[in-house]
Order: sequence, then structure tokens, then C-alpha cells
Amino acid sequence: MILCDIGNTSYHFLNKENDYKESVKTFDPRTIKDKVYYICVNPSVKIVLADLENWINLAGFINMSNYYETMGIDRIVACEAIDNGVIIDAGSAVTVDVVSDGVFEGGFIYPGVNAMNETYKNISSALNYPFNFELDLNKLPKNSVDAISYGYLKTLYNEVMLHNKDIVLTGGDSDKLAKIFPDAKINKTLIFDGMKKIIKS
Amino acid sequence: MILCDIGNTSYHFLNKENDYKESVKTFDPRTIKDKVYYICVNPSVKIVLADLENWINLAGFINMSNYYETMGIDRIVACEAIDNGVIIDAGSAVTVDVVSDGVFEGGFIYPGVNAMNETYKNISSALNYPFNFELDLNKLPKNSVDAISYGYLKTLYNEVMLHNKDIVLTGGDSDKLAKIFPDAKINKTLIFDGMKKIIKS
Repeated sequence: MILCDIGNTSYHFLNKENDYKESVKTFDPRTIKDKVYYICVNPSVKIVLADLENWINLAGFINMSNYYETMGIDRIVACEAIDNGVIIDAGSAVTVDVVSDGVFEGGFIYPGVNAMNETYKNISSALNYPFNFELDLNKLPKNSVDAISYGYLKTLYNEVMLHNKDIVLTGGDSDKLAKIFPDAKINKTLIFDGMKKIIKS
Repeated sequence: MILCDIGNTSYHFLNKENDYKESVKTFDPRTIKDKVYYICVNPSVKIVLADLENWINLAGFINMSNYYETMGIDRIVACEAIDNGVIIDAGSAVTVDVVSDGVFEGGFIYPGVNAMNETYKNISSALNYPFNFELDLNKLPKNSVDAISYGYLKTLYNEVMLHNKDIVLTGGDSDKLAKIFPDAKINKTLIFDGMKKIIKS
């Protein structure tokens, strides 16, 4: 069984235990003849895949009544993977979703690490620093690097901790955010756990 | 006495009770012959003003030992204006500075309203919405507009409230942020209060 999570920039495959990525720009989905269960947030890839019989969109098999219409299918499937917790998916955006007893409680969208770095850089060249993920969250900053790092990370930290639940980190920047959420569980294939659960049920 | 606070885009004057702005691009500071006390964060304007004898840079009259070297002079002067409180200066960046018994405790830098709107828009066209400043901060969002508004505003709100101090709002977007900080005092000329205090002492 091949699973595939398609984002704006890449196809993320899971083939048995083996996970790998292909670029949306260069990969041709017609080259796969086996059955692929997928979810896709990329509008142009969606159109291509709709015509391929061996590519099966899992979006049609989810009870959407808990979620909202414009919510990304990747967020929904990640929520399906757990029964309780806060899911932080750190990609181009950082999505934070809360699940209680298997029910989606709501969530919010925060800029991803790269997007936020760009934002500070564009506000002023004096704010063009990489974030300090090792900063002391208990101390108000007195230097520029920590002033933007605190602005980005401490604010996110407070809100996540308020929900007082287990934290699951997923997405490309999980390792970075793990530095401010040391008790979080990193699960980079959470989305595939959700997909498997949907296929099973 | 003329006071002037120069930012990246404009000269903000206070002439007696009258405050007004001039564009950095078009305004020629040589046209003023009276004495002007100013602060300036704009590097190219700084060079021009250094040669004008009637323009007096207040940066030289502040005890900088409480502050840090790369801290914007506008943030410093705003801190000088109060003895206790959290100052939120909502401009191209939102700077948040904490002052206790006349001493700067530290502060952080968060993106301004327009900058953050651009950030979400650039992450995905599906996130290209103006923020909802009326959103319920006590409820996790279940729609896209509130998901980004909560990401931007609730995270800032939590951190500001943690300091448990009076809040002073200043800067061009004070009115917008006042909707999430209803108990804050808006003082759009806080920086001039600080400048007057420095001139007096």
C-alpha cells in the first residue's frame, strides 16, 4: 500500500516503512501504476490526480461534520490520527489543532519559521537574523535576536501550553520547535497514521 | 519648541499642540529654521540631519545603560515616558516593552498588522483575509479568518496579559489593537511625552 500526502511543494510518499519526497514541479504521478491513497492541498495537482484511477483521494472517506469547510485536508487527517492532544504541524505555516476525546475543538494558523523570518527581514534589515530557538522563554529579551525570537516563539508557546494537553509535533520544522516544546512527541509521519486509520475504518 | 520623531517612512512633528506628518521621501528638513528636537531610526535621514545645526538629536541625552545597543531609539524614548506599564507600539512592527519603576525590563518585537497580513497571504492565497479584530479570544477558531486572526492576536494577547501591568497603546494601528486590549490607554503621542521628559531633565 502506497500513501501520499501532497502539499504545495512536494509529494510525500510512504511505501511500507519507506518515506520519501518528490517535487511537485518535476514528479509525474502517471509513472506510478500501483494503488496510491492520497490527500492533496495543491489545487493544480488535485486536477491531474482526479483523472488517474489508481490514485484514491481519502478526503471522500472522512466524516467532515467535526471540521470546517476551508480547513486543509492535511490538518484534518492529522487530527484523525489522535484522540487527545495538541498537534503542531510546522511547515510553511504552523497549524495548531486541539483534539479532545477524538473531537476537533478548533485550531489556529501561525506563520512558519521561514515565513516569519522573511517577515521580520522585510520590516527592517535590522531584524534580519535567524531565530534563536535556545532562548530563555522566562526572560524578557534585551537584544535584537532574542527580541524577534521571543516575539515569534514565546507567544506561540504560551498559547499551546494553555491547553494543557500532550503535544505532538509534525512537519519539516518539528526539530526546531522541539527546542521550545521539550516534552512534545515528534511524529513526522503523523499524517500517514491518520491516513491508515481512515483506510481501516 | 518643535519635536520630531522620524521613522522609516515619515517625519512625525509636534509643534505646540499640533501634530502632523511629512513623508521621508519628499520632505526637506532644511526648510525648517527653528530649533527641532528629534529622534530618528532612519539611517539616511540621520546623515542629512547630522549637518543641520538647528536639528538636535535627543539620543545623546539619554542614559542608555538600561537599554541595549541595537534597540530602536523610538522604543527607548517611549519607555522613558512611563514609570510602570507595558507599551505596545503598533507600527510596521509591533514592539512590546515592559517598564517597572522607571526601569526597562526587556521587550520583544512582533510583526505589524500589515506585515503579518502579507505573511499569511504569501504562505497561501487561501489565507489572504484581513484580520478579524472582533474575534472571541476565548474560543478556538473553526474558520479560516479566525484561524489566522487568533494566530496573530491571541498569541500576542496572552504574552502581554502575563505581565499584569497597565497597557499603553501607541502607533498607527493602536485603534485596531485596542479592540483586543479594551482596558489599554491609547496615547498616540507617547513618544513626544518621552521627548519632553528628556528635554526637561
